[in-house]
Amino acid sequence: MSSISGNLVVGQSGGPTAVINQSLVGVVQEALKHASITGIYGARNGVEGVLREDFVNLRGQAHQTLEDVAVTPSAGLGSCRFKPKVEDCKNIFQVFTKHNVRYFFYIGGNDSALSAGIINKIAQEQNYELRVFHVPKTIDNDLLVTDHCPGYASAAKYVAQAFMGNDADNRSLPGVKIDVVMGRNAGWLTAASALARVNPNDGPHMMCLPERSYTIKEFVERAAAIFAKHKRALIAVSEGLADADGNVWLQSDRIRKELAELKMEAIIEAMDATGRIEDLSGGAKLDAFGHAQLAGTGALADFLSAIVKTHLFRETGKKARVRADTLGYAQRSFAGCVSEVDALEAREAGRTAVRVAVAGEKNGSIVFKRIPSASGKYLCDSHRASLEEVSGVNFPAGVKQYRPMEDAFISADKFDVTPEFVEWARPLLGTLPVKGQLADLKIG
Amino acid sequence: MSSISGNLVVGQSGGPTAVINQSLVGVVQEALKHASITGIYGARNGVEGVLREDFVNLRGQAHQTLEDVAVTPSAGLGSCRFKPKVEDCKNIFQVFTKHNVRYFFYIGGNDSALSAGIINKIAQEQNYELRVFHVPKTIDNDLLVTDHCPGYASAAKYVAQAFMGNDADNRSLPGVKIDVVMGRNAGWLTAASALARVNPNDGPHMMCLPERSYTIKEFVERAAAIFAKHKRALIAVSEGLADADGNVWLQSDRIRKELAELKMEAIIEAMDATGRIEDLSGGAKLDAFGHAQLAGTGALADFLSAIVKTHLFRETGKKARVRADTLGYAQRSFAGCVSEVDALEAREAGRTAVRVAVAGEKNGSIVFKRIPSASGKYLCDSHRASLEEVSGVNFPAGVKQYRPMEDAFISADKFDVTPEFVEWARPLLGTLPVKGQLADLKIG
Repeated sequence: MSSISGNLVVGQSGGPTAVINQSLVGVVQEALKHASITGIYGARNGVEGVLREDFVNLRGQAHQTLEDVAVTPSAGLGSCRFKPKVEDCKNIFQVFTKHNVRYFFYIGGNDSALSAGIINKIAQEQNYELRVFHVPKTIDNDLLVTDHCPGYASAAKYVAQAFMGNDADNRSLPGVKIDVVMGRNAGWLTAASALARVNPNDGPHMMCLPERSYTIKEFVERAAAIFAKHKRALIAVSEGLADADGNVWLQSDRIRKELAELKMEAIIEAMDATGRIEDLSGGAKLDAFGHAQLAGTGALADFLSAIVKTHLFRETGKKARVRADTLGYAQRSFAGCVSEVDALEAREAGRTAVRVAVAGEKNGSIVFKRIPSASGKYLCDSHRASLEEVSGVNFPAGVKQYRPMEDAFISADKFDVTPEFVEWARPLLGTLPVKGQLADLKIG
Repeated sequence: MSSISGNLVVGQSGGPTAVINQSLVGVVQEALKHASITGIYGARNGVEGVLREDFVNLRGQAHQTLEDVAVTPSAGLGSCRFKPKVEDCKNIFQVFTKHNVRYFFYIGGNDSALSAGIINKIAQEQNYELRVFHVPKTIDNDLLVTDHCPGYASAAKYVAQAFMGNDADNRSLPGVKIDVVMGRNAGWLTAASALARVNPNDGPHMMCLPERSYTIKEFVERAAAIFAKHKRALIAVSEGLADADGNVWLQSDRIRKELAELKMEAIIEAMDATGRIEDLSGGAKLDAFGHAQLAGTGALADFLSAIVKTHLFRETGKKARVRADTLGYAQRSFAGCVSEVDALEAREAGRTAVRVAVAGEKNGSIVFKRIPSASGKYLCDSHRASLEEVSGVNFPAGVKQYRPMEDAFISADKFDVTPEFVEWARPLLGTLPVKGQLADLKIG
């Protein structure tokens, strides 16, 4: 294996994270060390920038500028949701040839790994020597092979801190509080709400994960039981909350049927009417309830609030205080809530990719692996895995191309995580705020 | 003026803040210094706890427990939304007499000041010597007399950091992003989004404050103009967004009429249908659109998203990426986002109240006043003001009992704040995260 001399292109793709720029800066700083890498080009908006030859000179950036960008959330180069077709990849490859690009690093999730894989294949077919590496990032933590993904831990830390605060808030002014958490396919982020628990009876008291299915009856009865026991309830729900058919609730005919059986037709009517708003704004492809989109809308939270309020009123005859928040984009880009571990590992992922490429590996994806330690201390190393394995591009139909939470991390009753999950996740988040509680001392 | 010997009761009331426990601990730590104060009782859930004689012994708490509670968001004693009537105040007063309570500190907003005022009045009428102090707290920053309120700066910091992240996110994946911010009567928190701006063209690019009124046409046309100019738009909207009659949008017949004129009837239909959900869950008193409640629902954000999407589609024929988040309870209770200045001042407010009371002042509220400094450095001191003045209890009808943003802080076009506001608010937030940006360097 030997290195090749030429220019380097790095791009960022997909949903932002709090540490995706750490990986960018890791790539740049490692590249600066190697004589075989001449120009260091940043592609604006991922492969879209490559296609229009829109590059920023990263070699010329001041050290402090890079360090400032590293601690700034979201893609400093701009991102894209563009999933290149084979034809696009051919065009990308032409741009690379024109600019003598010999190193390509694509920071992103599953789709980015796939894009890198296709570009790599074309380069091989054309006998053009190109080093192609996927640098992992996703708040969803659903990449294959790796122990965990850069970006996840900071988002998990945000979720944990939001729930710590929400729990204190809910104790302070009791009621039912529901928080909807990102992660359509996998429950990793919703599960991180468990890390908010510090004192006895701390919430969340109930979780719903996309790896399991739930009926409306199960949901409202569980919420009511918790409310009866604790006089309050803090509930963490994944935006991927699904029915027994695997459909998310707001796109489910089964859920519609359950609502009718529970005589909650007013809710069906409201969801249908809300769906018709979309017709005004460009006629998106709509589901049963008219909600194509999960993020950036409060629809699920408001829906859950409505069913719990209704159920509690029918059960108790009293109007309960029920509130629901959708945690929103702050999960992936809140400034100033970064896991120290995540920041270091995201930087390392970028550095490792360049180091491995310069050392002669032709392609790959960077994955993390825990190292057993005698003291029980968290130790983790990064290394190369194959692009094919990480992107799952050649998997047979029916095999998941993303990584759900393992069964050992989900409690048997499906409404919580296990202690094993907490043990696995806790070291990733770095420091968490103190959560104090007054001792229950009597007067006199 | 002289001090009197007896027990002290402290309580917390209203919506939580990130530093309300700092004030609690300030009261306790100062009280521990004075021999005239014997028992230090914490009332659980504010005056509700007083009424049921539910007290926790605060003198017996370990120093570290108090310090841990101080950095924990939300009311450590529990809070309440209970606005005591004169009859309740008489009962409270009986409990005080029974327990020889001579010092009462109530940490809260306008309603708490008012409650303290009534209790004080009854004590005076009955010639019972009682020191009654209101200790200010509110994220809304709308208490009278004071320069600013403990609790505001930490919430403002959360809002600023959320917008810093949202701006980076919106640059990274361009579209229209709308964030709905707390503060029904006053725009202080929405205005804090301006502190997120660091680099040229940073958002928010548009704000709507409750101190001004807006039509739908103004709103969507402004959003479209920003989107046309920057290819993206970040918009900060107060939950108190109001029409020309002073009604909030989701409770406004005028807005309903405007929607009809703009041929957005599908939106009216959806809002009406959503309103009917409430009938299922206890029949709240409903407004035109069926939304009695502002916080803990994504209704306004989803509404704004719908009108902007619709307008942009009609103008451009293209479906724009429009997302809306409701920042939610994290604004008032996110763990780990506290202004250092706010934490110190909230502690000081509690200490000052006790010090002034022990020194012989019979009642009052603690207010903050800036001290002019030659260097321009932020200096601020706390002192006693009258309860009457702060609570506005005896104001003639029509005079505001809360403090809106002053005109000098709102831009002439009503869609932004002025540099004067930024200068006023910036020192309150303490440190803010770095927001880096790559230099626009060409390659080759």
